[in-house]
Amino acid sequence: MAKIGFIGLGNMGLPMALNLQKAGHDVTGHDIFPAAVEAATSAGLRVDAAGAVHDADIIITMLPNGKLVLDAYQIILAKAKPGTLLIDSSTIDVASARTAHEQAAAAAMLSADAPVSGGVGGAAAGTLTFMVGGTNDVFAQAQPVLAAMGKKIVHCGGAGAGQAAKICNNMILGISMVAVGEAFVLAEKLGLSHQALYDVASTSSGQCWSLTSYCPVPGPVPASPANNDYKPGFAAALMLKDLKLSQEAASAAGASTALGSHATEIFQEFVSEGHGGTDFSGIINKIREKTA
Amino acid sequence: MAKIGFIGLGNMGLPMALNLQKAGHDVTGHDIFPAAVEAATSAGLRVDAAGAVHDADIIITMLPNGKLVLDAYQIILAKAKPGTLLIDSSTIDVASARTAHEQAAAAAMLSADAPVSGGVGGAAAGTLTFMVGGTNDVFAQAQPVLAAMGKKIVHCGGAGAGQAAKICNNMILGISMVAVGEAFVLAEKLGLSHQALYDVASTSSGQCWSLTSYCPVPGPVPASPANNDYKPGFAAALMLKDLKLSQEAASAAGASTALGSHATEIFQEFVSEGHGGTDFSGIINKIREKTA
Repeated sequence: MAKIGFIGLGNMGLPMALNLQKAGHDVTGHDIFPAAVEAATSAGLRVDAAGAVHDADIIITMLPNGKLVLDAYQIILAKAKPGTLLIDSSTIDVASARTAHEQAAAAAMLSADAPVSGGVGGAAAGTLTFMVGGTNDVFAQAQPVLAAMGKKIVHCGGAGAGQAAKICNNMILGISMVAVGEAFVLAEKLGLSHQALYDVASTSSGQCWSLTSYCPVPGPVPASPANNDYKPGFAAALMLKDLKLSQEAASAAGASTALGSHATEIFQEFVSEGHGGTDFSGIINKIREKTA
Repeated sequence: MAKIGFIGLGNMGLPMALNLQKAGHDVTGHDIFPAAVEAATSAGLRVDAAGAVHDADIIITMLPNGKLVLDAYQIILAKAKPGTLLIDSSTIDVASARTAHEQAAAAAMLSADAPVSGGVGGAAAGTLTFMVGGTNDVFAQAQPVLAAMGKKIVHCGGAGAGQAAKICNNMILGISMVAVGEAFVLAEKLGLSHQALYDVASTSSGQCWSLTSYCPVPGPVPASPANNDYKPGFAAALMLKDLKLSQEAASAAGASTALGSHATEIFQEFVSEGHGGTDFSGIINKIREKTA
């Protein structure tokens, strides 16, 4: 069992840290927000800013963006023991993830980028998917630790490959949810029932996760957020964050992603109108609104 | 066993007619192209323009577009026996499909729109999916006949519902193939391997039929057309046809389908450049070409 520092005890980070503790690891947390510290303490997690860094064998970061990760790394790289394994589970831009790897290597630390999918529910249940970028040796060290927080741990390649896999996957997700929303709205206009379209598409070439797991109309998939007034689920603001990361990466790398860019605009408009907290499948309401 | 007239003995129609004959039906075919007539006769099908209409209990049409279906119906409605069941398995626009139903009803015929998915392979193997629009009574009569040509027969609703289901499904298909292509091209630019993206996306929220059945890069799905120089499979020209039908219907009905429209433009450009005979997954090459 390892001494683990966990930095970023938010909606995702706290349940992840508690699962590590439950698995027998010696976990010390840290967060800059007093409310997060209080919640962690109440849940039985030791919180100590210095201890989370100085004494750790492994330091996990779970922060909102690349700038905050690089800011945290300034302190971590100065204060942690050489040879410490740094795992960044934040979803951040590929460029910052690569910079974090380079800075870690320069400071004689080991590093992995390991963003997750599975949301708050997966974090609490310990069923997250981790997409990991880093060397084979680092992956071998990180794998058993990540397994205490997730069900599926995929080694995607070298530095940044975890972030790359996540944004490529989530770009498909964002586009396909808009596609499914447009198809249901067109079906409505053509007098085709939701259930009939679902029965055809879910078992043929239109099948996709957005349809069969997060169906944006109530009925066909009883557990989908559409049946619960579009409460997330996966908030539209997070979908937009990931789409924007995909477009930043595409733009920096010179990749043409016309539909990725278009879907980003569609979610941007939805979020700008105050629907960031709505499940991303609620985009169907935006599509319906544009329909004559 | 029924007397069946089969009009349109092309790449799809001929194997479908032969499967009906194999099931014991008394089938008479017709096609305006001498080459199609010759192929049908060689395959052992009786071909007789008058007989396919006058004596039939059921007349099936399998034609390239709505205008040709309505032209054929002019003759069929004048010459067939009252009470004949007319099944149009062509993929055509929803408006023409509804007109065909109305004209059939006015001539005291029964009618169903029943477009298929599954392609030439499914037509030969008798494993097509039929999406059927029509009354419950008509569906009950058509079902056993269609079952001789297909594996899955879905009653989608009233007049035109089969065509509506097909174009809504195929609009999702066209958009999601572009999405998957963009994701692989972005992955290439980010140094993420095809296999790594496939492993993540095929088992998480980016999963879709375009990825897991028609994967547009060679390797992850050995049977996909990408492994066979993008030989169809499902030709880009047919994907474009279905996307255009979806956009005609959306425009007529006033439905907003922004990504459907954008995907149509992307496939239009690909087909205009001479790639209509390429599998639709070849769109990834167009995306790659636009990438710097």
